[in-house]
Amino acid sequence: MDMVSLRYTSKKPKLKNPILIEGLPGIGNVGKLAVEHLIDTLKAKKFAEIHSKDFPPQVFINPDGTVKLANNEFYYWKAKKKNQMDLILLTGDYQGLSSNGQYELVEKILDIAEEFGAKEIYTLGGYGLGHEMESPKVLCATTSKNLVKSMKKHGAIFKKNEPGGGIVGASGLLLGLGGLRGIQGACLMGETPGYLVDPKSAKAVLKILMKVTNVNVSLSALEKKAKEIEHIAHQLREMEGSMSKEKSEELKYIG
Amino acid sequence: MDMVSLRYTSKKPKLKNPILIEGLPGIGNVGKLAVEHLIDTLKAKKFAEIHSKDFPPQVFINPDGTVKLANNEFYYWKAKKKNQMDLILLTGDYQGLSSNGQYELVEKILDIAEEFGAKEIYTLGGYGLGHEMESPKVLCATTSKNLVKSMKKHGAIFKKNEPGGGIVGASGLLLGLGGLRGIQGACLMGETPGYLVDPKSAKAVLKILMKVTNVNVSLSALEKKAKEIEHIAHQLREMEGSMSKEKSEELKYIG
Amino acid sequence: MDMVSLRYTSKKPKLKNPILIEGLPGIGNVGKLAVEHLIDTLKAKKFAEIHSKDFPPQVFINPDGTVKLANNEFYYWKAKKKNQMDLILLTGDYQGLSSNGQYELVEKILDIAEEFGAKEIYTLGGYGLGHEMESPKVLCATTSKNLVKSMKKHGAIFKKNEPGGGIVGASGLLLGLGGLRGIQGACLMGETPGYLVDPKSAKAVLKILMKVTNVNVSLSALEKKAKEIEHIAHQLREMEGSMSKEKSEELKYIG
Amino acid sequence: MDMVSLRYTSKKPKLKNPILIEGLPGIGNVGKLAVEHLIDTLKAKKFAEIHSKDFPPQVFINPDGTVKLANNEFYYWKAKKKNQMDLILLTGDYQGLSSNGQYELVEKILDIAEEFGAKEIYTLGGYGLGHEMESPKVLCATTSKNLVKSMKKHGAIFKKNEPGGGIVGASGLLLGLGGLRGIQGACLMGETPGYLVDPKSAKAVLKILMKVTNVNVSLSALEKKAKEIEHIAHQLREMEGSMSKEKSEELKYIG
Repeated sequence: MDMVSLRYTSKKPKLKNPILIEGLPGIGNVGKLAVEHLIDTLKAKKFAEIHSKDFPPQVFINPDGTVKLANNEFYYWKAKKKNQMDLILLTGDYQGLSSNGQYELVEKILDIAEEFGAKEIYTLGGYGLGHEMESPKVLCATTSKNLVKSMKKHGAIFKKNEPGGGIVGASGLLLGLGGLRGIQGACLMGETPGYLVDPKSAKAVLKILMKVTNVNVSLSALEKKAKEIEHIAHQLREMEGSMSKEKSEELKYIG
Repeated sequence: MDMVSLRYTSKKPKLKNPILIEGLPGIGNVGKLAVEHLIDTLKAKKFAEIHSKDFPPQVFINPDGTVKLANNEFYYWKAKKKNQMDLILLTGDYQGLSSNGQYELVEKILDIAEEFGAKEIYTLGGYGLGHEMESPKVLCATTSKNLVKSMKKHGAIFKKNEPGGGIVGASGLLLGLGGLRGIQGACLMGETPGYLVDPKSAKAVLKILMKVTNVNVSLSALEKKAKEIEHIAHQLREMEGSMSKEKSEELKYIG
Repeated sequence: MDMVSLRYTSKKPKLKNPILIEGLPGIGNVGKLAVEHLIDTLKAKKFAEIHSKDFPPQVFINPDGTVKLANNEFYYWKAKKKNQMDLILLTGDYQGLSSNGQYELVEKILDIAEEFGAKEIYTLGGYGLGHEMESPKVLCATTSKNLVKSMKKHGAIFKKNEPGGGIVGASGLLLGLGGLRGIQGACLMGETPGYLVDPKSAKAVLKILMKVTNVNVSLSALEKKAKEIEHIAHQLREMEGSMSKEKSEELKYIG
Repeated sequence: MDMVSLRYTSKKPKLKNPILIEGLPGIGNVGKLAVEHLIDTLKAKKFAEIHSKDFPPQVFINPDGTVKLANNEFYYWKAKKKNQMDLILLTGDYQGLSSNGQYELVEKILDIAEEFGAKEIYTLGGYGLGHEMESPKVLCATTSKNLVKSMKKHGAIFKKNEPGGGIVGASGLLLGLGGLRGIQGACLMGETPGYLVDPKSAKAVLKILMKVTNVNVSLSALEKKAKEIEHIAHQLREMEGSMSKEKSEELKYIG
């Protein structure tokens, strides 16, 4: 039994030089939100899933009372126009728990990418700033200097040696290990406070990805979610405000 | 040397489409209590045990001074009536310590289930509420919509997306990985405060399982244990009460 | 590369039905002290060592400035009298760090035991009480009822279901996994406060082991060490005493 | 897929009985600083890299916006004079995260050392004292008594049983596992407070290594870095000083 196993859930699709787009859970869940939004709006079709012994030993409960084993899922979408490419979309419940599990998971994803002839990988994630910002920028890192140029044209930002801690997890490894296999790619990191799920940052990331892929989707559902989250964030700040006020009043009684 | 190894402790029993019932340690030890009660009252016979390098490196001391290696144990019981099925009962000292160990353990249990032709698995566990309740309900999740229907008839409760965190451990994995092998099953989760072992919750779970299997056992031993635990819980609450009273009195002296 | 590897450091000795005696680090280092004392006083000869990837990645510095890789070491001693058996003595720097590493280590030790035809294993350890005692008793657990009888004759104590937590580590696993291979054995656990290395407890364990093996050694070196440790313990208690006195005096100034 | 994999990044160099010099991250980053300084000043050439599933799943961002997978890197330098030896220089981003990963990494490094016919290994590291010192001494430990003698001549210090905790990590394992393969070597440990990266300690280590190898490099770049660090350390001490002063003033207000 391998640590990571792939299972086709439908017939293998025939894809032509597809682009792989990854969005697994991470800071602000930016990548996962973005890829799930693409899957929903493009009506992409699920064709395979990955299980790993390095995912938590867990099933989730579906709304109908049945269970779903923790997994990663592959969807595909076929190009409608000449200037588009077929897409493989990857999202899921977890990344690997351990270093070893992360490497094994990413090697398996790259196996799929190679099997379907993917030449490019775009990985989506968040870049946690730890504070609020007006409009999130999208940082980028790539496997080659050529891609740096083209990503800049599409509006992605490159800051020298940033993120300082590099990119940890599947979004980084897919580029690092993919590069060793000769697969080009870029990581798009939407700035995010990092406290809550961040649809606004996911929207910023998708805006650039839409330019890269010439695939345009409505972002209104993300905008709606963003407003809901902003409302929640506002309420949390108010609660904190009143609590710290109470606290400082309490403190006055000491001494 | 595999991580998980099976060892027959008696001749392989001949069973006809048995049902596998799992009750390993967990919240309130509900599942373990329930399966141990079945083993005791049905006088089920042990036929195999599992050792795993992912169990703690530990032996237990038997009352006669000999040692027992930490394990999981399989028992069987043969149907007495036409509307009953043979049973394989699984309990043990531990679940796997790591994610990897949990997956390996459950794959091995499913190998046994398949070898004996088991078509259904019932996994028993607790659902920790963190507070006391009058009479524990039994939540359920299954591998198929058909089983949702029949389990509802037997009195199991389905709440949308509950438990919110899904089911973690062998009780969940047996359904998740079993489903991938085409084995149907359901998880019965007895509500429990989760502080102490909970025979009352085990009793509630068994009441439903008895309807599923048409196997009826006396529950009086569990009821007796439940009363003992209630007595202990009462004493603990009194101790806590007097302690927090002391504490608040002590606090008066400050300042 | 296996997790655990054996390396002969001299020609394989020819031994006749040897007894394996294990004393690896543990509570109060009772087992390690006892086996090291046997090795020293019997002038046992080293013949093999075990390295494990589950030992810390560490070398120790010898007094002459050279390094020694963390290991477990096997020594042998040949019987001098008719009523004695050859001995294999096992001690070392570490037990395995993980569950998996513990099982792999013990399986390798049992391979050696079987290769040399060992029929019995005695494992030595401490039983931590968390408080001082006059003269440490020696608790015991065995692989068979026969051995319970003979160990009682030699003065070992059996208390029902004690130690309550069973025996964790190599001393327990050697009996548990050894029993599955048909190798008989007993674990001797010297009572110890468990705070410091405890030569007095090691001495109590050896007294019983000497009756089992008919091999008698002088215990004076252990007695000397025990006095040194008692002196240190006394000093520590005095320091604690004066510190807590200071503390309570300090506390008077608050308020 | 192995845990550790080697990848040549250029044609295999032809080396004659090279010396392997290791400097991976550790206390005060002494070893890494020293080997990086050698690579820079000798203009050593990279020829291979190691990736490990036990390194963090991480890429770093190059100044040009491209990514680099976390790795260990091998460089070589060819002797210019008769009394010099060819050098293999090893540095990198990480050591293995787990015990197992450390052993696997070091075994792979030793495979390379053997492939190129290396007869000696020098491992460089720091010896954390936890306090400032005037001029750092360089402690040493070796695989053989002969090397103890020659290293003493070169100015390395041997203190009985020091470091007391032995040597943990690649610097120790390379000697311990290398010794089992018949490769001689020594570990040079520069004393360091251990709070900050310590170029002064790296310089002390290199001074001795230069005598061992007859390879002389300018140390001025390290000296410059040392002054910068000293300046930072001075500022930190001042900040701490003023903070603890503030704190003690604040404390006066209590009560």
